[in-house]
Amino acid sequence: METAAFYHRPESEYCYIYAPGHVHVRLRTKKGDVAKVGFIQGDPFNLHLKDWYEEELEMELMASTDLHDYWLIDTDEYVKRMAYAFHIYGTDGSDVIYNDRGVFPYLKESLTNSGLYFRLPYFHETDRFKAPDWVKKTVWYQIFPERFKNGNPKNDPEGVLPWDSKEELTTVDFYGGDLQGILDGLDYLEDLGINGIYMTPIFTAPSNHKYDTTDYYEIDPHFGDKALFRKLVEEAHSRGMRVMLDAVFNHIGAESIQWRDVAEYQEESRYKDWFHIREFPVPSAEEIQAHGPVYMEHAENLPYETYSYVPMMPKINTHNPEVQEYLLNIATYWIKEFDIDGWRLDVANEVDHAFWRKFNTACTSLKPDFYLLGEIWTSSRSWLRGDEFHGVMNYSLVGNISDFFVGKTIPARKMANVLNEQLMQYRKQTHETMFNMLDSHDTPRILTMAEGNVDLVKSTLAFMFLMHGSPCIYYGTEVGMVGGADPQNRRCMVWEEERQDRDMYDFTKQLIQLRKEYQPLLSYGNLRWELVLDEEKVVGVKRILGEDQIIGYFNQGWEDYTIPHKANTEVIFHHLSNELAGESLIAPNGFSIHRVKSE
Amino acid sequence: METAAFYHRPESEYCYIYAPGHVHVRLRTKKGDVAKVGFIQGDPFNLHLKDWYEEELEMELMASTDLHDYWLIDTDEYVKRMAYAFHIYGTDGSDVIYNDRGVFPYLKESLTNSGLYFRLPYFHETDRFKAPDWVKKTVWYQIFPERFKNGNPKNDPEGVLPWDSKEELTTVDFYGGDLQGILDGLDYLEDLGINGIYMTPIFTAPSNHKYDTTDYYEIDPHFGDKALFRKLVEEAHSRGMRVMLDAVFNHIGAESIQWRDVAEYQEESRYKDWFHIREFPVPSAEEIQAHGPVYMEHAENLPYETYSYVPMMPKINTHNPEVQEYLLNIATYWIKEFDIDGWRLDVANEVDHAFWRKFNTACTSLKPDFYLLGEIWTSSRSWLRGDEFHGVMNYSLVGNISDFFVGKTIPARKMANVLNEQLMQYRKQTHETMFNMLDSHDTPRILTMAEGNVDLVKSTLAFMFLMHGSPCIYYGTEVGMVGGADPQNRRCMVWEEERQDRDMYDFTKQLIQLRKEYQPLLSYGNLRWELVLDEEKVVGVKRILGEDQIIGYFNQGWEDYTIPHKANTEVIFHHLSNELAGESLIAPNGFSIHRVKSE
Repeated sequence: METAAFYHRPESEYCYIYAPGHVHVRLRTKKGDVAKVGFIQGDPFNLHLKDWYEEELEMELMASTDLHDYWLIDTDEYVKRMAYAFHIYGTDGSDVIYNDRGVFPYLKESLTNSGLYFRLPYFHETDRFKAPDWVKKTVWYQIFPERFKNGNPKNDPEGVLPWDSKEELTTVDFYGGDLQGILDGLDYLEDLGINGIYMTPIFTAPSNHKYDTTDYYEIDPHFGDKALFRKLVEEAHSRGMRVMLDAVFNHIGAESIQWRDVAEYQEESRYKDWFHIREFPVPSAEEIQAHGPVYMEHAENLPYETYSYVPMMPKINTHNPEVQEYLLNIATYWIKEFDIDGWRLDVANEVDHAFWRKFNTACTSLKPDFYLLGEIWTSSRSWLRGDEFHGVMNYSLVGNISDFFVGKTIPARKMANVLNEQLMQYRKQTHETMFNMLDSHDTPRILTMAEGNVDLVKSTLAFMFLMHGSPCIYYGTEVGMVGGADPQNRRCMVWEEERQDRDMYDFTKQLIQLRKEYQPLLSYGNLRWELVLDEEKVVGVKRILGEDQIIGYFNQGWEDYTIPHKANTEVIFHHLSNELAGESLIAPNGFSIHRVKSE
Repeated sequence: METAAFYHRPESEYCYIYAPGHVHVRLRTKKGDVAKVGFIQGDPFNLHLKDWYEEELEMELMASTDLHDYWLIDTDEYVKRMAYAFHIYGTDGSDVIYNDRGVFPYLKESLTNSGLYFRLPYFHETDRFKAPDWVKKTVWYQIFPERFKNGNPKNDPEGVLPWDSKEELTTVDFYGGDLQGILDGLDYLEDLGINGIYMTPIFTAPSNHKYDTTDYYEIDPHFGDKALFRKLVEEAHSRGMRVMLDAVFNHIGAESIQWRDVAEYQEESRYKDWFHIREFPVPSAEEIQAHGPVYMEHAENLPYETYSYVPMMPKINTHNPEVQEYLLNIATYWIKEFDIDGWRLDVANEVDHAFWRKFNTACTSLKPDFYLLGEIWTSSRSWLRGDEFHGVMNYSLVGNISDFFVGKTIPARKMANVLNEQLMQYRKQTHETMFNMLDSHDTPRILTMAEGNVDLVKSTLAFMFLMHGSPCIYYGTEVGMVGGADPQNRRCMVWEEERQDRDMYDFTKQLIQLRKEYQPLLSYGNLRWELVLDEEKVVGVKRILGEDQIIGYFNQGWEDYTIPHKANTEVIFHHLSNELAGESLIAPNGFSIHRVKSE
């Protein structure tokens, strides 16, 4: 047995309280190497009286990856303290004990000393990862406000272009999209079934994307004003829609009063410690702009820290208590005054954890079910312990799905294995409030990545909707919009029905309905693989909650594939699939989603 | 190559900022399986411009355990953001890339996408584990106040026994030790070289150990009063000694006003939410005591939570904000009013992390170099991230050392391997402020564990003094006191010189001097094994800082063992070792500590 491959880590995604009194413990072993795992547990303070090491629960093999098997014990027996160890039986007939001190022969002396066991010392609800319940029920819609709808031409910026008037966009175009446009679009979103809106930044900023904030306390005048924003939130809420804003706290715009002051007074500026300045003098916005567009995208050896190498985005010093107070006041201002429901936190991984913990406390103590979503593209365990974010923009999960469906760069087994690996990266409840999106303002549009293959987009979207986590539609995906990398992914929303893909709209609407109808199962159900066929390029992904199951079969091959129905199967959604009595005949790029009920 | 054995975890003890601008990255592989590891790193935002994946730094094999090799890169090159991956070369000639997404062939497509790399997103000093520098320079002395010295017979409890009058102690004996006694003993401790005093609880409580606090705001009247305590701290400080108190915040005594109130008013009590009560009625202290001594040690099915199964120690509800305020006020009161230097936190693992984070903030914002020490007996990663404790009572480390030296239950190689494993459990700087002690009020005395073999105790103590972390002497060890498990380990301090082991005293004093003289090397030096001989039972443990080395050779076998001196060796301490020209002839249970200087 390959004992060097074992991994377990107390108080992490390997051992956590899932729900009050309900614990999950996981173990990693080498793939195919272990026949059985016995879970030994008890109260450390009564081991000497109860000999509880003599009893073993059997762990479930929950997932496999390319390299590993993952084992799970899912127990809701009431316990207040837990000492535990694993009794691991190799397929080679050997067996060992794995405890807090390492790997040992299965001998009484490894078992009778409570000090050698792993420990979940005490079950504290305070330390449990908790996230707002409504997020699990939400289907999001991401809006890039400058491009969604121009509801009020009076507030258009100078030099505004006619709506959707160019094939190839530039980074400096303006089209006049605004909050009135979003307000006007709410009926449309309601019809689609959306119940959560995520808007990229709306505060005063010179650019069209507004990630270079000038004033966090003002709505950009080209978008509207506070009264209008208040009305927008109220109208959204009255439709049961939540509203999430974008908080850009890693950096600020060089046109902000703070940076202007620093550029003017340099070392004498009262804001000099608001930034990470290594050397004076630092340039003003105008001096930076004078260097031209290439420099503005990538400037090296700046005397101050920035987002990436972008000189117009000086990095904020979030270690400075005065800055913390300033940013936390902004965060709470928009909650208190406008009742927003969530913050999406831009470049969240480059801001310190200490700040995010304060941020979490400030927001959730004001509004306990507030949602905190980090923009993090890599594995994100250190932000998802429960005291910083409730989810991240799940680029890694969807990237893997997309690699199989859209990119065709990996086989089915690899996709399943990587997805399993990703599920093992976080606590189960963390996955339930992740933010899943196939594309965003930071990626090419999904239909463009799929080279215009709408059926492929439908399959990929449907697959994503079967995952844990709340799905998000990037504006326009539902009507077949295309566009490559930034800025082509930020085209004006197509509103003329004749230019919209109405079939895609209906498909999206149905998918959203499905997600809502089966939300508990799709949020809470365990994920297992019913079918993974590399050669046929067919996968069947299953979600299981108690006796109920949903299985989505996806055919990404070149030939039709037949799925015989299980007993009590109801086909609840399908595309390019011939639903016959007792079987589904799925065409290439098609899928069929089955509900299998207990008898 | 056994890729299933790889382990790395971003933002943990596997990747952390050791000092400003100075990063450590570790990697786990299967023992003997990997020939070389290349470390690839760069700024994720310039990968496309710099192709930095083409350069590799070579990682150092830093430690091996029974199952694993651990590799280290220790870099102080200035970087602000770091994307990184490992290029792992097997002893079988294969090579792979290990990154945030898993294990891949060494191909350009695994290298040119910055999104696939592990990430240290930004170097934030705020998030770095930091601990007070003075702790590294401290040699502690643990005092059990009731048994150290009776300085004032006037405040003796009723029924006090003559000092050291019984061979076999009971759990209810009182001998009259007090703060005046500790004050009177400061000269003695100063002579010994002690510069940190850790006292078990001194607040009002009925027992002799005082872990059943009645009033956290009062010094127990049998120990003295606040004026005397203030004087004690001042006198200690004037001698350069730090003072650490014991905070028992997991539970409170049943005789406290809070529990008395609950027992009297039950559900109507204003303190009912100060505890974890499942059901009313709950018993009063007197009702508990009426059940007799067996019940008082272990009572099952109580309607309220307690420490272990001890009914007189109801567990405090640290989730309750009112309780938090109460406890944090106590913590800061003793810092503000009496200028104490540290809190040792009793049963720290059973209190919630959220509380300890607040506790850390409250104490360190008042006194930035305050020391927070948790009582945790198992692996303690989740408390040692930097925002809770600076160290734990290092029972696991010393348990392993003791297993080899005192218990003789493990061979030299096992001790070295387990010690290596333990070093890999925490960030390097965490080890520097751990609290190392061979025994305490909770274990049998070391000389008793060693069955009276003083030479063995000397060797074990010397070995512990060569470790990272601040060493602690349990009162009386330095004069050869014995005693088995509680309460025999709490005998009265022996003050008559003729009953003291003066040779042990002199040995301890010299050892303390040695520790102080070589403190930077012993705190900061890397630990490597110079010699590990299972058959001869000889180990040589080396500490290296730059060009300087200290090597301690310990002979635990049955025969003399000769160590030839390296060039530039100076023997700085030895016991039962014949120091000859060019070699040390170490007798069984002896040791010889060498300093090897650069030429």
